Amino acid sequence: MPLERLVYLDHAATTPLDSRVLEAMTPFLTTSYGNPSATYALGKTSADAVAKARKTVASIIGCKPTEIIFTGAGTESINTAIKGVAFQQKKARAGNHIVTSQIEHHAVLHACQYLERFGFEVTYLPVDGHGLVEPDDVARAITPQTVLVSVMTANNEIGTIEPVFEIAAAVRERAAALRKRIAFHTDAVQAPNTLRMDFAERGVDLLSLSAHKFRGPKGVGIMYIRRGVPFLAQQNGGGQERQRRAGTENVAGIVGTAEALRMTQESLEADSARIRSLATTLRDGILSAISRTQINGDPSHRLANNVSISFDGADSRDLVADLDAAGVMVSAGAACNATTIEPSHVLIACGVPLEQAASTLRFSLGPDTTADDIDYVLSTVPSIVERSRAKHAAGVAAG
Amino acid sequence: MPLERLVYLDHAATTPLDSRVLEAMTPFLTTSYGNPSATYALGKTSADAVAKARKTVASIIGCKPTEIIFTGAGTESINTAIKGVAFQQKKARAGNHIVTSQIEHHAVLHACQYLERFGFEVTYLPVDGHGLVEPDDVARAITPQTVLVSVMTANNEIGTIEPVFEIAAAVRERAAALRKRIAFHTDAVQAPNTLRMDFAERGVDLLSLSAHKFRGPKGVGIMYIRRGVPFLAQQNGGGQERQRRAGTENVAGIVGTAEALRMTQESLEADSARIRSLATTLRDGILSAISRTQINGDPSHRLANNVSISFDGADSRDLVADLDAAGVMVSAGAACNATTIEPSHVLIACGVPLEQAASTLRFSLGPDTTADDIDYVLSTVPSIVERSRAKHAAGVAAG
Repeated sequence: MPLERLVYLDHAATTPLDSRVLEAMTPFLTTSYGNPSATYALGKTSADAVAKARKTVASIIGCKPTEIIFTGAGTESINTAIKGVAFQQKKARAGNHIVTSQIEHHAVLHACQYLERFGFEVTYLPVDGHGLVEPDDVARAITPQTVLVSVMTANNEIGTIEPVFEIAAAVRERAAALRKRIAFHTDAVQAPNTLRMDFAERGVDLLSLSAHKFRGPKGVGIMYIRRGVPFLAQQNGGGQERQRRAGTENVAGIVGTAEALRMTQESLEADSARIRSLATTLRDGILSAISRTQINGDPSHRLANNVSISFDGADSRDLVADLDAAGVMVSAGAACNATTIEPSHVLIACGVPLEQAASTLRFSLGPDTTADDIDYVLSTVPSIVERSRAKHAAGVAAG
Repeated sequence: MPLERLVYLDHAATTPLDSRVLEAMTPFLTTSYGNPSATYALGKTSADAVAKARKTVASIIGCKPTEIIFTGAGTESINTAIKGVAFQQKKARAGNHIVTSQIEHHAVLHACQYLERFGFEVTYLPVDGHGLVEPDDVARAITPQTVLVSVMTANNEIGTIEPVFEIAAAVRERAAALRKRIAFHTDAVQAPNTLRMDFAERGVDLLSLSAHKFRGPKGVGIMYIRRGVPFLAQQNGGGQERQRRAGTENVAGIVGTAEALRMTQESLEADSARIRSLATTLRDGILSAISRTQINGDPSHRLANNVSISFDGADSRDLVADLDAAGVMVSAGAACNATTIEPSHVLIACGVPLEQAASTLRFSLGPDTTADDIDYVLSTVPSIVERSRAKHAAGVAAG
């Protein structure tokens, strides 16, 4: 029996590659296969395409093209930014302390834990019940040993948008008072679909993005690094990316990444407004149809496309599976952990009880999401939640 | 005026993406966009495709699928293999010494230099005039502090095939005598087009490959790591690749990589024989038509598709440019350095004089190279060499 409808509401996990992006990539997947390092015309065609992509990205970030590094993943960008600054500054005896938050993506948290093996000390700041990091907490956590602060732009699970520009300002102020350099990095992986990305002009020193989160290809990341920020290249070899990230450039991927970012940012206002309205419809529809629900994340400082809801007494694994059977694709917590059954570190940091965390669904909308999609989801969710609650209640009664 | 013919003889730098490979990738660039970590059906389709690709690659390397890690580049594989073992062993106080050769790709050399910043000591073994590493030299260089040996399978510039299985055996023997573990890594990036890749069964502990060198996509690397080899993950975050390389999998790229490797290895014997014969025709044709030429690399232990020739008194930059104007794409030395004018560290290590190194061309053939291509190249090279020699002689006379 064919499904009535397929509704993809997991854009925070990954997005479909846009057909226009694939079209921009196609020459570099077919005839224009030259290595950008080669000096003959076919090589120059590739080098020019990479240079053009870099310029496009730089104009959106608000920086110089030389401040953009293309990597192989958002996770690589994050690891490179954090370790690149940390190791360089440790070598320079500038300090060994890093400040971050408890609700960062695992790429940030685990990169920091890696650095702890190398003698770094890391402060993992708590957040409030909405997942907000307090800029004053950041300022207070900074010590004369601090070399790097990393706070995400928007949380992937609960959609909370952090006050990154205020945090950037707080970092600068403390750095000036301490007469030292402290770099501020933000993992902005979830941001480009709903926020303007001109971060370089707003005090951010390093920024990480992942192409497949904004309709670009999987396997490409962007890293912005402000000129002059101390940095030790983490992937060594050829002289690509101005000696800061060796390896033959993924030309097609880089071209697609720039096109996806350009396209996404170009239609940002219209898309965001429409997505926000659909997300509100979804949220309100669920809240009015289903009792004992909790919205996670900040009510106002939040990504337009994220709806995170806990359904007391249900099990999110049931919900994801039953929604999938009905043609609706959503996530229980972060996609990167979807195959594990650990409770979400983000929800726990927000003070959400374990049981509630385990009953949470994340709906993340995209530019192609329609009102009909939302209607369909609203027609499926209540009975699925009811079934899981009944099953769970029976289990509890039996146990 | 359209060029009579376009002849691509720089397959050591990169190869065209095969149309069958692109076909295998296409579903994952279009409809099958799920994140492999997602638990719904669209996610499982991606996860299954990655698992199948891993199985294909493992069957070719001769290892278990769990011993294969997909990365974002050959350079990443090399960096990860070397640093992953080195840092883990240093932590375990197993030693801080690495043995490699002077003619490795910069990915190996610069990864080792990176480690020197972290207290590692590296022995860079010399090679003979043909670029061969002597297994006895490796054995002698190993000390009680040695944790890793890395010697390339075949050199990217001069095509010399190293005795890696003898080196692997020598490493094992010394490790046994020292009653310690010493891992052996080989950068096999240049190998899959002309050598069987069943290295895991032949004593190699870690191996690095790059998809775009064998008709796969740019932006994907393979790393084989034997089970039990000490290893510290270098890219941290989600639990992908069994916690050994975080980041959303490049599903299309991984699928294409496996298909390219399968295809390349399947037709290896026939392709190699044909390519070897064409390369011999090219080499002999140049030697008989042009005086004062030197063949670089080992005469017998060499990649079937590599012809490296120095043209005394010519400048390789002229030659590359003039050949490009005639529609023939070749490299002066390694592609990764084509935009620099440093003399090749490989040729220098082989004892080639500076002037001769600067007059060197590398022709690298591919499975689509035809006899007509070679005829055409042979018709263009002599006058181009003559012109460069005349120009250079005039410059020397004037200077």
